[in-house]
Amino acid sequence: MRTESTLIRWIWWIVVVTALFFSGFIIGWFAKPKNANIEDHKDSKQFLKEFLDEIQTDQIRQHLRKFTRLPHLAGTEQNLKYAEQIKREWQEFGLDSVEMVPYDVLLSYPNKSQPNYISIVDHLGTEVFNSSLAEPVPQGYEDISDIVPPYSAFSAKGQPEGDLVYVNYGRTEDFFQLERTMGINVTGKIVIVRYGKIFRGEERHVSRSKGDHYVLRPSRLLGCWCPGWNLPGGGAQRGNVLNLNGAGDPLTPGYPAKEYTYRFSLEDGVGLPKIPVHPIGFHDAVHLLKNMGGDIPPNNWKGGLNVSYRTGPGFMDDFKSQKVRMNIHTNNQVTRIYNVIGKIRGALEPDRYVILGGHRDAWVFGGIDPMSGAAVVHETVRSAGRLLSKGWRPRRTIIFASWDAEEFGLLGSTEWAEDNAKLLQERAVAYINADSAIEGMYTLRVDCTPSLHTLVYNLTKQVASPEEGEEGVSLYESWHKRDNWTNDRDAPRISKLGSGSDFEAYFIRLGIAAGRARYTKNKKTERYSSYPVYHSVYETFEIVEKFYDPSFKRLRAVAQVRGGLVFLLAESQLLPLDTNEYADSLWKYSQSIAQLAQRNPGEMELYGVSFESLFSAVRNFTFAARQFHERLQTLNRADPLQVRVMNDQLMYLERAFIDPLGLPGRPFYRHVIFAPSSHNKYAGESFPGIYDALFDIANSANPKEAWEEVKRQISVAAFTVHAAAMTLTPPA
Amino acid sequence: MRTESTLIRWIWWIVVVTALFFSGFIIGWFAKPKNANIEDHKDSKQFLKEFLDEIQTDQIRQHLRKFTRLPHLAGTEQNLKYAEQIKREWQEFGLDSVEMVPYDVLLSYPNKSQPNYISIVDHLGTEVFNSSLAEPVPQGYEDISDIVPPYSAFSAKGQPEGDLVYVNYGRTEDFFQLERTMGINVTGKIVIVRYGKIFRGEERHVSRSKGDHYVLRPSRLLGCWCPGWNLPGGGAQRGNVLNLNGAGDPLTPGYPAKEYTYRFSLEDGVGLPKIPVHPIGFHDAVHLLKNMGGDIPPNNWKGGLNVSYRTGPGFMDDFKSQKVRMNIHTNNQVTRIYNVIGKIRGALEPDRYVILGGHRDAWVFGGIDPMSGAAVVHETVRSAGRLLSKGWRPRRTIIFASWDAEEFGLLGSTEWAEDNAKLLQERAVAYINADSAIEGMYTLRVDCTPSLHTLVYNLTKQVASPEEGEEGVSLYESWHKRDNWTNDRDAPRISKLGSGSDFEAYFIRLGIAAGRARYTKNKKTERYSSYPVYHSVYETFEIVEKFYDPSFKRLRAVAQVRGGLVFLLAESQLLPLDTNEYADSLWKYSQSIAQLAQRNPGEMELYGVSFESLFSAVRNFTFAARQFHERLQTLNRADPLQVRVMNDQLMYLERAFIDPLGLPGRPFYRHVIFAPSSHNKYAGESFPGIYDALFDIANSANPKEAWEEVKRQISVAAFTVHAAAMTLTPPA
Repeated sequence: MRTESTLIRWIWWIVVVTALFFSGFIIGWFAKPKNANIEDHKDSKQFLKEFLDEIQTDQIRQHLRKFTRLPHLAGTEQNLKYAEQIKREWQEFGLDSVEMVPYDVLLSYPNKSQPNYISIVDHLGTEVFNSSLAEPVPQGYEDISDIVPPYSAFSAKGQPEGDLVYVNYGRTEDFFQLERTMGINVTGKIVIVRYGKIFRGEERHVSRSKGDHYVLRPSRLLGCWCPGWNLPGGGAQRGNVLNLNGAGDPLTPGYPAKEYTYRFSLEDGVGLPKIPVHPIGFHDAVHLLKNMGGDIPPNNWKGGLNVSYRTGPGFMDDFKSQKVRMNIHTNNQVTRIYNVIGKIRGALEPDRYVILGGHRDAWVFGGIDPMSGAAVVHETVRSAGRLLSKGWRPRRTIIFASWDAEEFGLLGSTEWAEDNAKLLQERAVAYINADSAIEGMYTLRVDCTPSLHTLVYNLTKQVASPEEGEEGVSLYESWHKRDNWTNDRDAPRISKLGSGSDFEAYFIRLGIAAGRARYTKNKKTERYSSYPVYHSVYETFEIVEKFYDPSFKRLRAVAQVRGGLVFLLAESQLLPLDTNEYADSLWKYSQSIAQLAQRNPGEMELYGVSFESLFSAVRNFTFAARQFHERLQTLNRADPLQVRVMNDQLMYLERAFIDPLGLPGRPFYRHVIFAPSSHNKYAGESFPGIYDALFDIANSANPKEAWEEVKRQISVAAFTVHAAAMTLTPPA
Repeated sequence: MRTESTLIRWIWWIVVVTALFFSGFIIGWFAKPKNANIEDHKDSKQFLKEFLDEIQTDQIRQHLRKFTRLPHLAGTEQNLKYAEQIKREWQEFGLDSVEMVPYDVLLSYPNKSQPNYISIVDHLGTEVFNSSLAEPVPQGYEDISDIVPPYSAFSAKGQPEGDLVYVNYGRTEDFFQLERTMGINVTGKIVIVRYGKIFRGEERHVSRSKGDHYVLRPSRLLGCWCPGWNLPGGGAQRGNVLNLNGAGDPLTPGYPAKEYTYRFSLEDGVGLPKIPVHPIGFHDAVHLLKNMGGDIPPNNWKGGLNVSYRTGPGFMDDFKSQKVRMNIHTNNQVTRIYNVIGKIRGALEPDRYVILGGHRDAWVFGGIDPMSGAAVVHETVRSAGRLLSKGWRPRRTIIFASWDAEEFGLLGSTEWAEDNAKLLQERAVAYINADSAIEGMYTLRVDCTPSLHTLVYNLTKQVASPEEGEEGVSLYESWHKRDNWTNDRDAPRISKLGSGSDFEAYFIRLGIAAGRARYTKNKKTERYSSYPVYHSVYETFEIVEKFYDPSFKRLRAVAQVRGGLVFLLAESQLLPLDTNEYADSLWKYSQSIAQLAQRNPGEMELYGVSFESLFSAVRNFTFAARQFHERLQTLNRADPLQVRVMNDQLMYLERAFIDPLGLPGRPFYRHVIFAPSSHNKYAGESFPGIYDALFDIANSANPKEAWEEVKRQISVAAFTVHAAAMTLTPPA
């Protein structure tokens, strides 16, 4: 008995000891964190909510008020002061680092002692009419000095005199019509065009392509007589007339404009117009147009002014001996500009960058452009800083940028992209642009790369509609109701990225997934470009507060979209980029470019032009995208290297569409899927290489050669899409 | 007493239970593997030893024997058969995948029914002398058909007739001397040059730069009368005369030559010479030279033949009426070629690639070029396969490549690089080249990027010397003794990478760290280019077995170096790339390029040329490299993401030296630190942009403009080095 009892006791003992040890072992095994890398979804969701909630209308109002009191043109003292203030405040908000990054770029200012203006001169050379030298200053700003008058930055200097010719919008096709159909030669003439359709620098395309025909001194007036509800007749649009095609600073194309950087001479600089150019208000335009002679142009050449449009050349009847003279004394000068760059270091992947960038420089006060956007960035930084103080830190690094000299050709953002090209190419996940946050009072407008579509939809479902009477309605629903994608799909419309803002170098040159969001007008009813006071002195704080967004809820919604995109791109364990959406878009674009070509079925047959290689590449891409998407579902998320490998494939997808050789004649536009056409700088074109080659067919003297170029561009596009598909297949 | 005893017992119990639990917990905690990522150094070292030991002389001998029995020119049936055999054997060796990758590229073959030859014709047009149509076939190969006769691939067709002119090596400076000093016009002449100094395709440089002066039909004979010990007088060097500058297939520059790819016409192809070119043996050269008239050239123009060198034009005395006629009927044709690509999937980082590539196509048998190299690759694959069967798998993916059509302009390797450019740019760690493994019997020769220096030294200390009487001596010691780096450092000499083999697209276009190793001659005593039988029919298996490496130990040593580099690059947890070595090399190169410029101190002063910005950038880079090196020491190697972040910085360092805009006029040469000069295609130049700009000063009509280009190139170099330094700083 006793031995038995001892035995049982021993057995009992051993069982207990073993059990205890094992329970300890097992608890120890599991207590050890497998990996700091595994995302805590609950936390992340909670942080997103806190981040969005922290974004406040009052704060945005204050930021906008504070940064629109004084004119702050690029290169001026005041714009540097604002940069310093932004730097200080971002530091106070809690960013890990904030620095000023200067570049010395070519800017262009009117000569203060010799104002620019346009005159009508009589046969004795006496000025019988002079255009206004400045816009009437809006109420409340009468004491402000340093308001730059309307001008065309980088215009050539000169005082050309000649007959006036009216050329509609000044597009390639308008010039062709004028010359070929109407038989009017513009050599030596002063050309007047109406505002719209194309970028204001594009007339250089015409002067370049026509060579000697226009070199004397034809010029072009940018009359702004859009039917806006509040641009006075004395108001006019400032703007640059460069033809940069993404080169950045005209004197240092391809390289950052640092102190040691080699600068081309002005003659060899990129995109500088050779002719004088000047913008005028519609009062002055009426004066110039009302006595014009020549033929009556077709109806679609007639603008909204109360004059009988005529093409010229010159004036009619009693005014025949009068000429127009331009007096342009604008100076180019290398000037220091300052970007402000702030960073939040990523906790797990410090070498992956999500960028939120927008410009700070304004033509005058910048009430809308750009400070409505800059105020939104400022508030995003403040909200992120609050989160940091609560212990949050994003998985990836976030970079905030306040760009300088956007108005002079996207210079600050492009120089920084050139300076950091290697780092960005290897490490940038996405670039979200933050120019003007509002251009209308209707609904959201998003332009982005296809891989961001899904993220934009998911995020806007978590943001509230800012519209009166839509309490409890999501921004997604509000937007969907107002701007459905009708033909393509039942979802809010998302457009292609075009150009004309700071995302350009990041998206079109470097191939970084990019997007932009703002509040916009109803395109069906409001047909003017941009918004009426665009680039005028009337872009003030008050115009936002009184008209565009009195509650500042629209700007808050835009801030939540821009900020939310950055938050989720920086924080999600798996990058929220959707390969299937890219595949669907490529399919759509390949169909529509092929349809465009099919307008010439006979020539396509004759020259053996086929889109089959492109369609086949798109099918291949679609298959790879679907397979990739499936592999994502079975990914072992606990393995940090496996996660990184797939995230790298996602990050580099956009990069795969970059052709290092660039688009024809445009070495800094390198995105084969998205870029502006050579014939319209603002709008984004899909397959721009093929598009331009097709565009050139109509005007080519050698159709075989022109179609050969189409074939070459189809081949380049097919190769690029195939190569992109390869980046999505398993790496080995 | 009892309660006290119970209490003690309870306490005792609790202590035991707690202790047991804790020991269980602690054992459980530590028993769990922290991370599969942590390298077991012992295992890795053991595997390296096994890998090197498995590489066998007998096997290399057999591989070489097997692949040199028949001529296997690119594009021929036999070269496809060898490709299929290599594929089959690599599969048998155990690679994870092996595939054939075809491209359709422009090749060039003699016309079988109209042979190429050179004649001397008398005044009646009768051919009084004809050069030989083929080389005498070496012993044992008398029954072999399909031996292509010596020719210049891609030569223009034609039968030009004219006076002979002798132009030394045919360098830019030789043509200048002939024309400017000696007053001889080569227009319409047949030009004869001696072999050496420059690449055989470079005469196009002259014809291009002089424009109309040479367009009639001057041509050039490549006489090969190098003083080799065993090239018979009837032997001559085959070779291509393209001027590709890295473009790959001349009809599809920048894109892979796939079925759907757009092809330029022959007129628009890249680098195709406009003039007939033909190589001759020294027996034929003596016939052409012996009766030449004209002046006696300077002594440094005299070659090794037993004739009295004269410049021409034409023959002397009784032979005056005789002319030289070239009969060239070579055809260009688009032809299918095949690369063989084998892979071992990386265990932890499948998306990081280490490449070992060398070509398979040969002019005839390829006993040395390239099969001595291909046999070495084959043996490396076999050894790696053995390791795989023992359970080894490298950390990263290894890619083995058997390239086709290297002899026709590096076509196979370049097309594959173009096809996979995006993947390679994002994922390739290093490229090790495997052309001819032996060109002499003296010692090791290594050309590589500076970041590989340290790895090469470390590895060669673990490889045995192959030399007789050096048992127990390492390859490093044997090499060091024979070729010390004298002026620079007390270590074996390592040279810059030049061009002329398949690493070109990987290193100079894509910026992938690259290196090559082979056994070489004693450069101090053996001054001929390459080796005497280079590109002749006499490159047989026997020449290796009888002369170059009877024991096959030298080839084994080369295999161990090439294979060992690949092994360590693929296997090491931290990439074995040395940033400090790059810094030291940059310093050296910046000093020497500045010294080159200092030959014109007056002009440098006059035009304000300074190297300070470059020196400053190199100092900046050096600081960043040192700091990076220090951070590596304190890296937490247990954190897979931290390790990956730093490895990425190491991998992308070489990429940082790539300028997407390319070197001036050479869009596919994009490495700012290393590329051949425009004036010598084989040798690697450091800072080639600056070098070429300085070279052009002597011949420029506008020195100010020429010095402006030097300044621009210094600025580009300084920027590139600064940008590279940025990639080494902490990422956020």
